[in-house]
Amino acid sequence: MRIFGIDPGSQRTGYGCVETDGRRYHLVACGAITMRAGDAFAHRLAAIHSELGRLLAIHRPQSVAIENVFHAVNARSALKLGHARGVAMLAAVSAGCEVFEYTPAEVKRAVVGYGRAEKRQVQQMVTLLLSLDEPPTPFDASDALAIAICHLHSLPAQGNVDSRTLTPRSKARSWRNYRPPAAQ
Amino acid sequence: MRIFGIDPGSQRTGYGCVETDGRRYHLVACGAITMRAGDAFAHRLAAIHSELGRLLAIHRPQSVAIENVFHAVNARSALKLGHARGVAMLAAVSAGCEVFEYTPAEVKRAVVGYGRAEKRQVQQMVTLLLSLDEPPTPFDASDALAIAICHLHSLPAQGNVDSRTLTPRSKARSWRNYRPPAAQ
Repeated sequence: MRIFGIDPGSQRTGYGCVETDGRRYHLVACGAITMRAGDAFAHRLAAIHSELGRLLAIHRPQSVAIENVFHAVNARSALKLGHARGVAMLAAVSAGCEVFEYTPAEVKRAVVGYGRAEKRQVQQMVTLLLSLDEPPTPFDASDALAIAICHLHSLPAQGNVDSRTLTPRSKARSWRNYRPPAAQ
Repeated sequence: MRIFGIDPGSQRTGYGCVETDGRRYHLVACGAITMRAGDAFAHRLAAIHSELGRLLAIHRPQSVAIENVFHAVNARSALKLGHARGVAMLAAVSAGCEVFEYTPAEVKRAVVGYGRAEKRQVQQMVTLLLSLDEPPTPFDASDALAIAICHLHSLPAQGNVDSRTLTPRSKARSWRNYRPPAAQ
């Protein structure tokens, strides 16, 4: 099963594709689509849409998981974010993928075990869960991977996968031992 | 010259296409794309995008004018509106049209002469400017026509059209005589 996570933003849209064989998670691809500051807003949206469409055509995920935000800093930033999120959802639907939405707190709870975790903690746990040598950067990419993992975590509840096999044994242990880098 | 105006909304997206020969405005088409309440949000966005794409392919406007909103009721409604506006802008760019943005106050000033005019006043002026027998309905459609007319009004300043020929003589007179229906 292959899931494509999207962390939409008007400046930078993170994406991360994760695959699972029912026992372990594997990184397929991740990165961020960065907009050129000088481009007209409409052309930035077209760039997000076409780049996500290209990536979805390459990686052919079963589903797309996207971050759902209810509380933005203000109406203006919410409006901008909405544009990016709208074209990202459109790219997913056009690629024939079902779209699942998760709030930032749900993603953090699923990956770190704590709904108010910091981006760096999410990045660290994504690194552990995917058995990566280096943390995925930028944060937009690790956040998108976390969204994909969050969707995979939610599947056992729907009876698709055995929950015991889906939760990596390393998770609880690693999280207990984990200290944020700033505190080291 | 043919301009396609869009008044985006997550429930209903108004559109209106206006043509001018430099002397008068003519209605080409107008209406509203209404979303089915039961549809998933991602599929509603896909419906807005495909329907606008279809209309733009039929009417082949030179440019698209779209309402620009900075102040929404709250962040949540701004986010929803942003999605609809994002896919509408994407449809315009995909159709090869340049996108122009106008605030509601700019549109109202251009059409009614007063930035805080009511929807009914805008509808009445659109009816006069396009020499229509009946007012275009719903308000989403008349608002979209007003956005297109607003863009046509703004062109003389860019030196494209003679401003004396573009402003219908009836405008100032009709507005002076106009009374909102509620006050009659």
